[in-house]
Amino acid sequence: MSQTIYVISGPAGVGKSTTSQQLVQALSKSAYISGDAISHIPVNGRGKPWLFKETFDLTWKNILSLTRNLLEQDYDVVIDYVTFPSEIEWFVQQLTDFQYRIVYVVLLVDRSTLIARDQSRSAEVQMGERSLVLLEEFEACSELKEQHKLYTQQYRREQVSEIIEEIQNNFRFILKGGHPS
Amino acid sequence: MSQTIYVISGPAGVGKSTTSQQLVQALSKSAYISGDAISHIPVNGRGKPWLFKETFDLTWKNILSLTRNLLEQDYDVVIDYVTFPSEIEWFVQQLTDFQYRIVYVVLLVDRSTLIARDQSRSAEVQMGERSLVLLEEFEACSELKEQHKLYTQQYRREQVSEIIEEIQNNFRFILKGGHPS
Repeated sequence: MSQTIYVISGPAGVGKSTTSQQLVQALSKSAYISGDAISHIPVNGRGKPWLFKETFDLTWKNILSLTRNLLEQDYDVVIDYVTFPSEIEWFVQQLTDFQYRIVYVVLLVDRSTLIARDQSRSAEVQMGERSLVLLEEFEACSELKEQHKLYTQQYRREQVSEIIEEIQNNFRFILKGGHPS
Repeated sequence: MSQTIYVISGPAGVGKSTTSQQLVQALSKSAYISGDAISHIPVNGRGKPWLFKETFDLTWKNILSLTRNLLEQDYDVVIDYVTFPSEIEWFVQQLTDFQYRIVYVVLLVDRSTLIARDQSRSAEVQMGERSLVLLEEFEACSELKEQHKLYTQQYRREQVSEIIEEIQNNFRFILKGGHPS
Protein backbone atom coordinates (compact mmCIF):
# COMPACT_ATOMS: atom_id res chain seq x y z
CA MET A 1 0.00 0.00 0.00
CA SER A 2 1.35 3.43 -0.83
CA GLN A 3 0.77 6.52 1.27
CA THR A 4 -0.71 9.84 0.28
CA ILE A 5 0.80 13.26 0.87
CA TYR A 6 -1.84 15.99 0.90
CA VAL A 7 -0.52 19.50 0.40
CA ILE A 8 -3.19 21.97 1.46
CA SER A 9 -2.23 25.38 0.15
CA GLY A 10 -3.84 28.73 -0.44
CA PRO A 11 -3.59 32.30 0.89
CA ALA A 12 -3.59 33.06 4.60
CA GLY A 13 -7.08 33.12 6.08
CA VAL A 14 -8.67 30.83 3.51
CA GLY A 15 -9.16 27.95 5.94
CA LYS A 16 -6.06 25.78 5.37
CA SER A 17 -5.62 24.81 9.03
CA THR A 18 -9.25 23.95 9.67
CA THR A 19 -9.42 21.90 6.48
CA SER A 20 -6.07 20.17 7.09
CA GLN A 21 -6.88 19.23 10.66
CA GLN A 22 -10.23 17.74 9.72
CA LEU A 23 -8.62 15.89 6.82
CA VAL A 24 -6.00 14.35 9.10
CA GLN A 25 -8.80 13.19 11.40
CA ALA A 26 -10.58 11.53 8.47
CA LEU A 27 -7.53 9.36 7.69
CA SER A 28 -6.73 6.21 9.65
CA LYS A 29 -2.94 6.58 10.05
CA SER A 30 -2.08 10.18 9.51
CA ALA A 31 0.24 13.01 10.47
CA TYR A 32 -0.17 16.76 10.41
CA ILE A 33 2.66 19.12 9.50
CA SER A 34 2.05 22.83 10.00
CA GLY A 35 4.43 24.68 7.70
CA ASP A 36 4.02 27.79 9.84
CA ALA A 37 5.10 25.90 12.97
CA ILE A 38 8.09 24.40 11.12
CA SER A 39 9.07 27.82 9.79
CA HIS A 40 9.30 29.08 13.40
CA ILE A 41 11.85 26.48 14.54
CA PRO A 42 14.70 28.85 13.66
CA VAL A 43 14.26 31.71 16.16
CA ASN A 44 17.28 34.00 16.19
CA GLY A 45 19.49 34.93 13.25
CA ARG A 46 16.83 34.03 10.70
CA GLY A 47 15.05 37.30 10.05
CA LYS A 48 17.56 39.23 7.97
CA PRO A 49 16.37 39.86 4.41
CA TRP A 50 19.54 38.41 2.88
CA LEU A 51 18.96 35.22 4.86
CA PHE A 52 15.34 34.92 3.83
CA LYS A 53 15.90 32.54 0.91
CA GLU A 54 18.08 30.33 3.13
CA THR A 55 15.46 30.28 5.90
CA PHE A 56 12.70 29.55 3.43
CA ASP A 57 14.68 26.66 1.95
CA LEU A 58 15.32 25.36 5.46
CA THR A 59 11.59 25.24 6.16
CA TRP A 60 11.02 23.07 3.08
CA LYS A 61 14.03 20.92 3.92
CA ASN A 62 12.58 20.34 7.38
CA ILE A 63 9.13 19.53 5.99
CA LEU A 64 10.77 17.08 3.60
CA SER A 65 12.75 15.31 6.34
CA LEU A 66 9.66 14.90 8.51
CA THR A 67 7.63 13.66 5.53
CA ARG A 68 10.27 11.05 4.68
CA ASN A 69 10.32 9.75 8.26
CA LEU A 70 6.52 9.58 8.30
CA LEU A 71 6.22 7.81 4.94
CA GLU A 72 8.75 5.25 6.16
CA GLN A 73 6.37 4.44 8.99
CA ASP A 74 3.34 4.27 6.67
CA TYR A 75 1.68 7.54 7.63
CA ASP A 76 -0.42 9.60 5.28
CA VAL A 77 0.91 13.15 5.63
CA VAL A 78 -1.11 16.36 5.55
CA ILE A 79 1.01 19.47 4.95
CA ASP A 80 -0.67 22.78 5.76
CA TYR A 81 1.34 25.59 4.19
CA VAL A 82 1.29 28.37 1.60
CA THR A 83 2.75 26.30 -1.25
CA PHE A 84 3.31 27.34 -4.86
CA PRO A 85 3.81 24.92 -7.80
CA SER A 86 7.59 25.55 -7.85
CA GLU A 87 7.86 24.33 -4.25
CA ILE A 88 5.76 21.25 -4.96
CA GLU A 89 7.99 20.51 -7.94
CA TRP A 90 11.15 20.65 -5.81
CA PHE A 91 9.47 18.55 -3.14
CA VAL A 92 8.44 15.81 -5.59
CA GLN A 93 11.98 15.72 -7.02
CA GLN A 94 13.36 14.90 -3.56
CA LEU A 95 11.05 11.94 -3.04
CA THR A 96 11.78 9.77 -6.06
CA ASP A 97 12.86 6.87 -3.84
CA PHE A 98 9.36 6.54 -2.34
CA GLN A 99 6.12 5.04 -3.64
CA TYR A 100 3.44 7.56 -2.80
CA ARG A 101 0.60 9.65 -4.15
CA ILE A 102 0.59 13.42 -3.84
CA VAL A 103 -2.59 15.46 -3.74
CA TYR A 104 -2.15 19.20 -4.21
CA VAL A 105 -5.05 21.47 -3.34
CA VAL A 106 -5.00 25.26 -3.44
CA LEU A 107 -7.94 26.59 -1.46
CA LEU A 108 -9.21 29.87 -2.84
CA VAL A 109 -12.11 32.23 -2.25
CA ASP A 110 -13.17 35.46 -3.85
CA ARG A 111 -11.73 38.72 -2.52
CA SER A 112 -14.71 39.81 -0.45
CA THR A 113 -15.07 36.41 1.23
CA LEU A 114 -11.36 36.43 2.12
CA ILE A 115 -11.67 39.88 3.68
CA ALA A 116 -14.76 38.78 5.63
CA ARG A 117 -13.08 35.55 6.87
CA ASP A 118 -9.94 37.42 7.86
CA GLN A 119 -11.93 40.01 9.82
CA SER A 120 -13.84 37.28 11.65
CA ARG A 121 -10.56 36.03 13.16
CA SER A 122 -9.17 37.47 16.39
CA ALA A 123 -7.23 40.69 15.87
CA GLU A 124 -3.77 39.27 16.60
CA VAL A 125 -3.99 36.63 13.86
CA GLN A 126 -5.60 38.81 11.18
CA MET A 127 -3.45 39.01 8.06
CA GLY A 128 -5.03 42.10 6.51
CA GLU A 129 -3.40 43.16 3.23
CA ARG A 130 -0.96 40.21 3.23
CA SER A 131 -3.83 37.81 2.72
CA LEU A 132 -5.04 39.61 -0.42
CA VAL A 133 -1.51 39.84 -1.82
CA LEU A 134 -1.19 36.05 -1.55
CA LEU A 135 -4.61 35.54 -3.15
CA GLU A 136 -3.47 37.65 -6.11
CA GLU A 137 -0.20 35.72 -6.31
CA PHE A 138 -2.05 32.43 -6.56
CA GLU A 139 -4.49 33.79 -9.11
CA ALA A 140 -1.68 35.24 -11.22
CA CYS A 141 0.48 32.12 -11.03
CA SER A 142 0.65 30.67 -14.53
CA GLU A 143 2.20 27.38 -13.36
CA LEU A 144 -0.80 26.67 -11.14
CA LYS A 145 -3.17 24.45 -13.08
CA GLU A 146 -6.92 24.97 -12.73
CA GLN A 147 -7.38 21.35 -11.64
CA HIS A 148 -5.62 22.04 -8.33
CA LYS A 149 -7.76 25.04 -7.39
CA LEU A 150 -10.69 24.59 -5.05
CA TYR A 151 -12.93 27.62 -4.54
CA THR A 152 -14.65 27.35 -1.18
CA GLN A 153 -16.78 30.49 -0.83
CA GLN A 154 -19.97 28.47 -1.26
CA TYR A 155 -19.13 26.28 1.74
CA ARG A 156 -20.11 27.37 5.21
CA ARG A 157 -17.97 26.58 8.27
CA GLU A 158 -20.05 23.50 9.13
CA GLN A 159 -19.59 22.13 5.62
CA VAL A 160 -15.86 21.53 5.89
CA SER A 161 -16.56 17.79 5.80
CA GLU A 162 -17.80 18.23 2.22
CA ILE A 163 -14.52 19.92 1.27
CA ILE A 164 -12.66 16.98 2.86
CA GLU A 165 -14.68 14.51 0.80
CA GLU A 166 -13.98 16.48 -2.35
CA ILE A 167 -10.22 16.50 -1.60
CA GLN A 168 -10.21 12.76 -0.91
CA ASN A 169 -12.36 11.65 -3.82
CA ASN A 170 -11.86 14.03 -6.72
CA PHE A 171 -9.04 12.69 -8.92
CA ARG A 172 -8.32 16.12 -10.37
CA PHE A 173 -6.23 17.10 -7.34
CA ILE A 174 -3.77 14.24 -7.78
CA LEU A 175 -0.41 15.59 -8.89
CA LYS A 176 1.47 12.31 -8.95
CA GLY A 177 0.71 8.65 -8.20
CA GLY A 178 -2.40 6.51 -8.62
CA HIS A 179 -6.04 7.21 -7.99
CA PRO A 180 -7.20 7.33 -4.38
CA SER A 181 -8.33 3.93 -3.16
CA MET B 1 33.04 27.24 14.20
CA SER B 2 31.08 24.37 15.65
CA GLN B 3 27.52 24.60 16.88
CA THR B 4 26.07 23.62 20.21
CA ILE B 5 23.07 21.39 20.81
CA TYR B 6 21.42 22.05 24.18
CA VAL B 7 19.16 19.29 25.42
CA ILE B 8 16.99 20.68 28.21
CA SER B 9 15.41 17.73 30.02
CA GLY B 10 13.65 17.05 33.30
CA PRO B 11 10.19 16.02 34.50
CA ALA B 12 7.05 17.75 33.28
CA GLY B 13 6.36 21.01 35.10
CA VAL B 14 9.96 21.70 36.10
CA GLY B 15 10.32 24.69 33.77
CA LYS B 16 11.91 23.16 30.63
CA SER B 17 9.95 25.31 28.16
CA THR B 18 10.52 28.61 29.95
CA THR B 19 14.21 27.86 30.33
CA SER B 20 14.62 26.62 26.74
CA GLN B 21 12.86 29.59 25.20
CA GLN B 22 14.95 32.09 27.16
CA LEU B 23 18.11 30.16 26.27
CA VAL B 24 17.30 30.26 22.56
CA GLN B 25 16.81 34.05 22.85
CA ALA B 26 20.24 34.38 24.48
CA LEU B 27 21.95 32.76 21.48
CA SER B 28 22.70 34.70 18.29
CA LYS B 29 21.74 32.10 15.67
CA SER B 30 19.49 29.59 17.29
CA ALA B 31 16.56 27.25 16.82
CA TYR B 32 14.01 25.82 19.23
CA ILE B 33 12.67 22.28 18.96
CA SER B 34 9.79 21.35 21.23
CA GLY B 35 9.83 17.57 21.61
CA ASP B 36 6.19 17.68 22.68
CA ALA B 37 5.20 19.50 19.48
CA ILE B 38 7.21 17.04 17.36
CA SER B 39 5.62 14.09 19.17
CA HIS B 40 2.18 15.38 18.11
CA ILE B 41 2.92 15.39 14.36
CA PRO B 42 1.54 11.84 14.05
CA VAL B 43 -2.16 12.27 14.86
CA ASN B 44 -4.14 9.16 14.00
CA GLY B 45 -2.97 5.56 14.29
CA ARG B 46 -0.27 6.40 16.80
CA GLY B 47 -1.93 5.83 20.14
CA LYS B 48 -2.11 2.05 20.33
CA PRO B 49 0.07 0.63 23.10
CA TRP B 50 1.83 -1.80 20.73
CA LEU B 51 2.76 1.15 18.53
CA PHE B 52 4.10 3.21 21.39
CA LYS B 53 7.76 2.25 20.93
CA GLU B 54 7.51 2.95 17.20
CA THR B 55 5.90 6.36 17.78
CA PHE B 56 8.46 7.23 20.41
CA ASP B 57 11.31 6.29 18.06
CA LEU B 58 9.68 8.37 15.32
CA THR B 59 9.70 11.44 17.58
CA TRP B 60 13.45 11.08 18.13
CA LYS B 61 14.04 10.38 14.46
CA ASN B 62 12.17 13.59 13.59
CA ILE B 63 14.09 15.60 16.19
CA LEU B 64 17.32 14.20 14.75
CA SER B 65 16.41 15.11 11.14
CA LEU B 66 15.54 18.68 12.12
CA THR B 67 18.72 19.00 14.18
CA ARG B 68 20.85 17.82 11.25
CA ASN B 69 19.24 20.35 8.90
CA LEU B 70 19.76 23.13 11.45
CA LEU B 71 23.40 22.26 12.17
CA GLU B 72 24.06 22.28 8.42
CA GLN B 73 22.93 25.90 8.38
CA ASP B 74 25.01 26.81 11.46
CA TYR B 75 22.23 27.08 14.00
CA ASP B 76 22.66 26.32 17.67
CA VAL B 77 19.79 24.01 18.57
CA VAL B 78 17.81 23.96 21.81
CA ILE B 79 15.81 20.76 22.33
CA ASP B 80 13.11 20.93 25.00
CA TYR B 81 12.01 17.39 25.84
CA VAL B 82 11.89 14.75 28.57
CA THR B 83 15.18 13.06 27.65
CA PHE B 84 16.93 10.19 29.44
CA PRO B 85 20.62 9.27 29.04
CA SER B 86 19.80 6.31 26.76
CA GLU B 87 18.08 8.66 24.30
CA ILE B 88 20.99 11.10 24.36
CA GLU B 89 23.35 8.21 23.71
CA TRP B 90 21.39 7.11 20.63
CA PHE B 91 21.17 10.71 19.44
CA VAL B 92 24.93 11.28 19.72
CA GLN B 93 25.61 8.04 17.82
CA GLN B 94 23.58 9.36 14.86
CA LEU B 95 25.57 12.60 14.61
CA THR B 96 29.14 11.35 14.23
CA ASP B 97 29.49 13.12 10.87
CA PHE B 98 29.08 16.56 12.47
CA GLN B 99 31.41 18.77 14.49
CA TYR B 100 29.34 20.00 17.40
CA ARG B 101 29.15 20.32 21.15
CA ILE B 102 26.29 18.84 23.12
CA VAL B 103 25.16 20.22 26.45
CA TYR B 104 22.81 17.99 28.44
CA VAL B 105 20.94 19.51 31.37
CA VAL B 106 18.34 17.72 33.48
CA LEU B 107 16.33 20.31 35.42
CA LEU B 108 15.17 18.97 38.75
CA VAL B 109 13.42 20.29 41.84
CA ASP B 110 12.39 18.72 45.09
CA ARG B 111 9.01 17.00 45.30
CA SER B 112 7.14 19.75 47.11
CA THR B 113 8.37 22.45 44.71
CA LEU B 114 7.31 20.33 41.72
CA ILE B 115 3.84 19.88 43.18
CA ALA B 116 3.59 23.62 43.88
CA ARG B 117 4.78 24.57 40.35
CA ASP B 118 2.40 22.09 38.76
CA GLN B 119 -0.55 23.42 40.75
CA SER B 120 0.29 26.98 39.75
CA ARG B 121 -0.31 26.07 36.08
CA SER B 122 -3.75 26.24 34.49
CA ALA B 123 -5.85 23.15 35.16
CA GLU B 124 -5.77 21.75 31.62
CA VAL B 125 -1.98 21.56 31.50
CA GLN B 126 -1.41 20.24 35.02
CA MET B 127 0.42 16.92 34.98
CA GLY B 128 -0.46 15.79 38.52
CA GLU B 129 0.91 12.37 39.41
CA ARG B 130 2.71 11.95 36.06
CA SER B 131 5.07 14.75 36.94
CA LEU B 132 6.16 13.06 40.18
CA VAL B 133 6.60 9.70 38.46
CA LEU B 134 9.01 11.31 35.99
CA LEU B 135 10.88 13.05 38.82
CA GLU B 136 11.35 9.67 40.49
CA GLU B 137 12.48 8.11 37.22
CA PHE B 138 15.17 10.74 36.78
CA GLU B 139 16.30 10.43 40.40
CA ALA B 140 16.42 6.64 40.17
CA CYS B 141 18.24 6.61 36.81
CA SER B 142 21.71 5.18 37.46
CA GLU B 143 23.01 6.20 34.00
CA LEU B 144 22.28 9.87 34.71
CA LYS B 145 25.48 11.44 36.00
CA GLU B 146 25.30 14.04 38.78
CA GLN B 147 27.12 16.57 36.61
CA HIS B 148 24.10 16.86 34.30
CA LYS B 149 21.58 17.57 37.06
CA LEU B 150 20.58 21.13 37.82
CA TYR B 151 18.35 21.64 40.87
CA THR B 152 16.39 24.84 40.44
CA GLN B 153 14.18 25.13 43.52
CA GLN B 154 16.25 28.03 44.84
CA TYR B 155 15.59 30.08 41.69
CA ARG B 156 12.49 32.22 41.46
CA ARG B 157 10.65 32.80 38.18
CA GLU B 158 12.45 36.10 37.56
CA GLN B 159 15.84 34.42 38.02
CA VAL B 160 15.63 32.21 34.92
CA SER B 161 18.42 34.31 33.36
CA GLU B 162 20.76 32.98 36.07
CA ILE B 163 19.87 29.41 35.09
CA ILE B 164 20.60 30.30 31.46
CA GLU B 165 24.02 31.68 32.42
CA GLU B 166 24.77 28.55 34.41
CA ILE B 167 23.81 26.32 31.45
CA GLN B 168 25.94 28.35 29.05
CA ASN B 169 29.02 28.72 31.25
CA ASN B 170 29.33 25.70 33.47
CA PHE B 171 31.48 23.08 31.73
CA ARG B 172 30.01 20.25 33.77
CA PHE B 173 26.95 20.02 31.52
CA ILE B 174 28.99 19.34 28.37
CA LEU B 175 28.44 15.76 27.28
CA LYS B 176 30.56 15.86 24.14
CA GLY B 177 32.71 18.42 22.32
CA GLY B 178 34.82 21.35 23.48
CA HIS B 179 34.34 23.93 26.18
CA PRO B 180 31.85 26.70 25.46
CA SER B 181 33.54 29.68 23.83
